[in-house]
Amino acid sequence: MVRLFTPNLQQAELASHYYEIASALPLVCPHGHVDPRLFSDANYRFGNPAELLISPDHYVFRLLFSQGVPLERLGIPRQDGAPVETDPRKIWQLFADYYYLFRGTPTGFWLNTIFSDIFGIRERLSSKNAQAVYDGIEQRLNTPAFTPRRLFEHYKIEVLCTTDAASDPLVYHQAIRESGWQGRILPTFRPDAVVNLDNPGWKPQIEQLSRASGISIGNYASFIQALENRRDYFKHMGATATDHGATSAYTGQLPGSELEALFQRALKDHASSEDARLFTGHMIIEFARMSVEDGLVMQMHVGSMRNHNPALFQTFGVDKGADIPVATEFTHNLAPLLAKFGSDPRLTLILFTLDESTYSRELAPLAGHYPALRLGPPWWFNDSPNGMARYLNSVMETAGIYNTAGFNDDTRAFLSIPVRHEVWRRVCADWLAGLVLSGRVDRDEAEAMASDLAYGLAMKAYRL
Amino acid sequence: MVRLFTPNLQQAELASHYYEIASALPLVCPHGHVDPRLFSDANYRFGNPAELLISPDHYVFRLLFSQGVPLERLGIPRQDGAPVETDPRKIWQLFADYYYLFRGTPTGFWLNTIFSDIFGIRERLSSKNAQAVYDGIEQRLNTPAFTPRRLFEHYKIEVLCTTDAASDPLVYHQAIRESGWQGRILPTFRPDAVVNLDNPGWKPQIEQLSRASGISIGNYASFIQALENRRDYFKHMGATATDHGATSAYTGQLPGSELEALFQRALKDHASSEDARLFTGHMIIEFARMSVEDGLVMQMHVGSMRNHNPALFQTFGVDKGADIPVATEFTHNLAPLLAKFGSDPRLTLILFTLDESTYSRELAPLAGHYPALRLGPPWWFNDSPNGMARYLNSVMETAGIYNTAGFNDDTRAFLSIPVRHEVWRRVCADWLAGLVLSGRVDRDEAEAMASDLAYGLAMKAYRL
Amino acid sequence: MVRLFTPNLQQAELASHYYEIASALPLVCPHGHVDPRLFSDANYRFGNPAELLISPDHYVFRLLFSQGVPLERLGIPRQDGAPVETDPRKIWQLFADYYYLFRGTPTGFWLNTIFSDIFGIRERLSSKNAQAVYDGIEQRLNTPAFTPRRLFEHYKIEVLCTTDAASDPLVYHQAIRESGWQGRILPTFRPDAVVNLDNPGWKPQIEQLSRASGISIGNYASFIQALENRRDYFKHMGATATDHGATSAYTGQLPGSELEALFQRALKDHASSEDARLFTGHMIIEFARMSVEDGLVMQMHVGSMRNHNPALFQTFGVDKGADIPVATEFTHNLAPLLAKFGSDPRLTLILFTLDESTYSRELAPLAGHYPALRLGPPWWFNDSPNGMARYLNSVMETAGIYNTAGFNDDTRAFLSIPVRHEVWRRVCADWLAGLVLSGRVDRDEAEAMASDLAYGLAMKAYRL
Repeated sequence: MVRLFTPNLQQAELASHYYEIASALPLVCPHGHVDPRLFSDANYRFGNPAELLISPDHYVFRLLFSQGVPLERLGIPRQDGAPVETDPRKIWQLFADYYYLFRGTPTGFWLNTIFSDIFGIRERLSSKNAQAVYDGIEQRLNTPAFTPRRLFEHYKIEVLCTTDAASDPLVYHQAIRESGWQGRILPTFRPDAVVNLDNPGWKPQIEQLSRASGISIGNYASFIQALENRRDYFKHMGATATDHGATSAYTGQLPGSELEALFQRALKDHASSEDARLFTGHMIIEFARMSVEDGLVMQMHVGSMRNHNPALFQTFGVDKGADIPVATEFTHNLAPLLAKFGSDPRLTLILFTLDESTYSRELAPLAGHYPALRLGPPWWFNDSPNGMARYLNSVMETAGIYNTAGFNDDTRAFLSIPVRHEVWRRVCADWLAGLVLSGRVDRDEAEAMASDLAYGLAMKAYRL
Repeated sequence: MVRLFTPNLQQAELASHYYEIASALPLVCPHGHVDPRLFSDANYRFGNPAELLISPDHYVFRLLFSQGVPLERLGIPRQDGAPVETDPRKIWQLFADYYYLFRGTPTGFWLNTIFSDIFGIRERLSSKNAQAVYDGIEQRLNTPAFTPRRLFEHYKIEVLCTTDAASDPLVYHQAIRESGWQGRILPTFRPDAVVNLDNPGWKPQIEQLSRASGISIGNYASFIQALENRRDYFKHMGATATDHGATSAYTGQLPGSELEALFQRALKDHASSEDARLFTGHMIIEFARMSVEDGLVMQMHVGSMRNHNPALFQTFGVDKGADIPVATEFTHNLAPLLAKFGSDPRLTLILFTLDESTYSRELAPLAGHYPALRLGPPWWFNDSPNGMARYLNSVMETAGIYNTAGFNDDTRAFLSIPVRHEVWRRVCADWLAGLVLSGRVDRDEAEAMASDLAYGLAMKAYRL
Repeated sequence: MVRLFTPNLQQAELASHYYEIASALPLVCPHGHVDPRLFSDANYRFGNPAELLISPDHYVFRLLFSQGVPLERLGIPRQDGAPVETDPRKIWQLFADYYYLFRGTPTGFWLNTIFSDIFGIRERLSSKNAQAVYDGIEQRLNTPAFTPRRLFEHYKIEVLCTTDAASDPLVYHQAIRESGWQGRILPTFRPDAVVNLDNPGWKPQIEQLSRASGISIGNYASFIQALENRRDYFKHMGATATDHGATSAYTGQLPGSELEALFQRALKDHASSEDARLFTGHMIIEFARMSVEDGLVMQMHVGSMRNHNPALFQTFGVDKGADIPVATEFTHNLAPLLAKFGSDPRLTLILFTLDESTYSRELAPLAGHYPALRLGPPWWFNDSPNGMARYLNSVMETAGIYNTAGFNDDTRAFLSIPVRHEVWRRVCADWLAGLVLSGRVDRDEAEAMASDLAYGLAMKAYRL
């Protein structure tokens, strides 16, 4: 099997060896968006093929939209409740008609692999076989073994971390624990909604945070207390990490006086865009301070301009394939944070970018110096065979693999987890084979690296 | 023949197969700068070898200039009429003496191929054989078959679009039509000169536009009418597209009141640089509105700082190899335009960049979402084997090939058209072979993609 | 031997041929940081293995620091004189324990090659064999042939340029000359310390410059005279080049009146950050003017934010692995300098960047136009097999190899010079083999290019 290997017999053979080492290891999923509800009930069933594979996955439907297919025809619910397509077989047929759009894309590779490896379908999806494929998937979905918990075990997932709002009561995580099932599903603390003052729903979010923490938030100090309270709860529920999203990597500490005034403006709905920017930059440092104290690993995902298409956002809401990356700057922006905590052995800060020009220019040199920094794997649009190859070739010479955090699949599509890890492991195996054959690492080193990239680095970076 | 294929037997063999599919298809030239005059007269003859291949082509003479050869010695005319070299054999000898500069460059590849495939010259050009090569070319140029029309047919060019100013009367296009010759030569509407207020010749251009349209331009409304009038004429003459150049991708609608005031300042020669920037950004949206209404495909070529060398510009004028790219931003800059027309099925907007860092970061995600967007092929300095490979590897995973516009040669050097397409088709064939051999697309998919990349995508994107 | 060659038999065989051509040529080292003291005494001895290979080399110790190893434990001296580890065997053992961090990095490749090729050690360094390796190196260091001068001859170094402050009396260079030894060690004029007003030590530096030049510096005119005086001295001592470092590539001429006022503010310690930026930008043009007059080749190394980690800087000083690149802009920034001197045949300006996004976008187009410009080799973090491959693939199509300056090792680690050149020569050989096998250059052209890239281009660009 030469999937994703360089078409060169000698290299492919060696790559197969490293892939075998990697594929024998359990899957570690330290960052993603799978709904914990899937695992809270032993008998949870997936829906029909369309609602399983198409309508919840913006990686999939964005390409049909890009060719003029209205999201309504794909069954994406509208915010105003206006009718959308509900017949899953019609949606499926439309998807099959446009399946050629996925040629050469990672989403196409994942879908093909899910169809063949999970659903046992041998033919590539097409307009012609669409209904037969639908039948085949539906049939398999109805088999008793096809529950999230059984698949979790079947895939040998060692741990799967979800992403959860600061005020989330974590009821599904609680239910999983109480059910006695041994699968390790951990929450991740993601407080963006209570940090981003630009978010029109900020005030209601603060009220939720007050309720969730039992701390009435009337000033900055009580806001911090409430966050710390929630972090304690997340830790108690097994969390080992937090996650923070922002458009830019700006960090900067606000003086106490300005900070309180700004926070009060926000409570009165008078915060400006500039206030929001400064507050986010301040809070990133505050969260680093908390991480130093409570040991939660900190993740930063920066550089996406969310909801670029306002009409689409108004009609369908967030996460509809219209988040577009922007140029990102780390060297200046992270300096204040790193001056304070970058050399603190208690902090681990994992960075993600959508701007590949920062790999060799900023991120690898930063990670090759600061003890607190680790680089996350290629993210989102770059979570692809070429994206991974560029990452490995641009980052590893300067940072070394031991300043990276291994792989994470970052997916809400549970069934795609195995193939996403397979892609990473295969691309790494091929890269390692290339290093060996060009005399850059020894064979035993490559074996250790194959294992570290597939498993060890993620376990260590996320303190799992 | 392994030209431009990865040196791997298995891949080269498969690439040859895809290249055969591509090379059987006609050439589609939807964007370029060939002079329509070449085709207006059935007996048009090319000049001597130096005036055919050297003096009009800044891709060629810039490399000699970069090593200290004065442009005067290459016969480039001076604006002040001061004497320059006129002996084509002396110019040719100098070119041959410096021919080693082109080693490994796309221009070198094109020239080598033109010499061998078009002029039947077997030896590489050198100081020693310069005059003999000159003789060989001259001889061939004098053969009866060597007219633009015969070559157009011989190259199997299905359609060739020129680039023409808004006020251009299109007399050569008219002559071609009237001649009864069946070659399809279409104009493209390029209104930069009447849009760019920074251009010292803006006022005379406006007067020309008034004359050409028969509409006296005294305010913004009549300016728009004149443009729409010319677009109608271009459409009537077969145009299917417009083209717009700018230093940045900035777009933004000016409120009506400011707009008129600004336009009046411009008419009085009082417009500032900032006025010019805002006006260009406004007009881009206005042109998108016109395209929505009249169906002309819109092209944007952004990111070149023109005439970087002021002394050279003063002495020799525009297009002398001194246009230098700048970093380019699309995500923020195009947001106003895309919010208005990005999802409109009537618009096709084809984007070109010189900043490759935008491929994976901005352009592919934008094209993978907005129905109106298509990505143009690698442009100018990136129209090269490596530039194409980087483009295919960076863009296609996220946008898919069906959100791109295939290839265009963008050349004023008519004889280089076949080899430019050959390079694209070979690099695509090699890329497809790599995808197949690494299990990323099936063989039949690659065959369809080879055909689409060579022919179908360009025909469709440009509505030809 | 397939070290650093593409794992493809045909390509590796051809690459070997080009590498043989390159490896037969002497080493040219036109830019670096080797201490001239090494060559001033025929009997100079290197210290112990730790002080030879670890403590002076920030490429090495930064990776241990990045994993939490305090620099004190590696024997890096503190500015406050507090105790640090002094036992070289303990330092060596720690280094060996963390040697896995260098897997796949260029530093690891250099170290492995130094151990095997220079010290004859066959086993890879590990915790287990650390002391035995130490013994082996120590033994070799004690052999009579192991002096810098003998190694210089053994390595076939044709010329080695050091980097020296404007006020440096060049006593070691003087001593080398007077010793009658024939090795060619030349100084390079690096005036950053007297140009950068942000440097807290600027005033003392100016006093040193006054003393060194014998010109009392009380205004801008005398400052310029002092610099010209020192350049004369450097030229007299064999220098052929200057070097200039800055965070940005900004250039811009200050009007005489502002200039003098700014200089007087600086002398009174009242210069602002903005003054410093403007003054550096002005001086770059002034230095270009001097180069036009005295013929010294000008180098610019831009884009590093120095001393990013303030606590580390305070404790250990400069050059401790905490210099981090920033995004760099050349097209606008260099325009004023190039408008003045870019086409002057007397100037050679060699540019270095840490921002690879500028390779194809700005640097190659600039170098492909301006006669004065040459591009330096991949610098610092990009001086690596992948960094070189990216450079060759991104730069050469547009600039051609004849607008580049060949290779320089830029190292303070004398023993790493041969392997650094070997890496460059091998990567170039592999690249050339790829060009030949894909029909992009002929075999005889590749032979000439192999030689030029290894030797001729550097000799010519640096006027050696």
